[in-house]
Amino acid sequence: MESAATSPGPRPDTGPGPDTGPEPLRRQARFLREADQLKGVARQSSILDGSRKENSAEHSWHLALMALVLRDYAPPGTDLNRVTAMLLVHDLVEIDAGDLFVYADAAAQARQEAAEQAAAERLFTLLPPGQGPALRALWDEFEERRTPEARFARALDRLQPMLANYYLGGGTWQQHGIRASQVLDKVALIADGSAALGEFARELVDSAVRQGFLDRGQ
Amino acid sequence: MESAATSPGPRPDTGPGPDTGPEPLRRQARFLREADQLKGVARQSSILDGSRKENSAEHSWHLALMALVLRDYAPPGTDLNRVTAMLLVHDLVEIDAGDLFVYADAAAQARQEAAEQAAAERLFTLLPPGQGPALRALWDEFEERRTPEARFARALDRLQPMLANYYLGGGTWQQHGIRASQVLDKVALIADGSAALGEFARELVDSAVRQGFLDRGQ
Repeated sequence: MESAATSPGPRPDTGPGPDTGPEPLRRQARFLREADQLKGVARQSSILDGSRKENSAEHSWHLALMALVLRDYAPPGTDLNRVTAMLLVHDLVEIDAGDLFVYADAAAQARQEAAEQAAAERLFTLLPPGQGPALRALWDEFEERRTPEARFARALDRLQPMLANYYLGGGTWQQHGIRASQVLDKVALIADGSAALGEFARELVDSAVRQGFLDRGQ
Repeated sequence: MESAATSPGPRPDTGPGPDTGPEPLRRQARFLREADQLKGVARQSSILDGSRKENSAEHSWHLALMALVLRDYAPPGTDLNRVTAMLLVHDLVEIDAGDLFVYADAAAQARQEAAEQAAAERLFTLLPPGQGPALRALWDEFEERRTPEARFARALDRLQPMLANYYLGGGTWQQHGIRASQVLDKVALIADGSAALGEFARELVDSAVRQGFLDRGQ
């Protein structure tokens, strides 16, 4: 299936931080200034009043709020504070790489991955050397999806647009002709992070099919 | 000084949660659906490319990211995970009450406080009874500004728009004719949460005056 990433390429540096304050704080302020650009990265999903596309900054907030509200569905022993931290930084690379639709093809996914690696390199090295690598490691952990924390974070990242499509009565499922079988592939990833949320997502898909705004497929 | 809150009043209920899943999860999904509306609450400050006003959802994300990046400036012993949780929920009441400009007069502040209390009552009771009160308590703690966690969270909430005004070369300071002495009143609140960030904010004000985009005032 064809799908183009909204890939603006590396953006121009927004310039130095404030001309004042101790060196680490100036670097941190510079990073936080750069981070502001995530508010201008449009995702595929709309916000729930349907008025416009969601941006990746407000999406990240929604996910972190979900981690707080849905914490009981994480596997026992999951470090929920690391989940939250991961969710806060997980989309920063989109400042350079743009957002890729979750149903994009393999070639587009590979291009996206390369762009995101370059973006991570640029962004996290803006921070003081004693701090950048730790935040970069959080992003790597999210991408690698090996730890329970990363799996739970990724589950939320998949569940949120699914809920949006459900509430919007179709959303990107309808816009892109996505069928239930394709959505269920993503549900497997949710179940991998949280059995209870996986079950809930499966029921959402069934309900959407039943209500007629998601195509049952084959 | 006159200033109007963008106060839409209580919004219509967005309806029931999904028709599926166990009761607590349905309530939580409903709360998270309601929370989506924070993406439509405009603040006074612009995003840093100057293209539009910031909304309260992406602002909340930026603050939570600040808590992660600037954690070393919190007083020793501060529970930074509680700071983050507080920042994630602190603006939810604006879904009903709207955002009030930080330099609004006392009467407007009092009206805003009443509207926010009613909003907190409505929103947090959407959650399961075993969860709503704990999240409501986080919001109360933020508002009361007594604990080190609340003071640090409030410091970040004041510092973020100050940094935005600095980077925008004036921003709301110029739009509303705010003078350095008024900004320094807010800096005191930052210093109350973090000595280092208070000092940094004071230097930002000096630098803004020096560069000519903040009026020195009396």
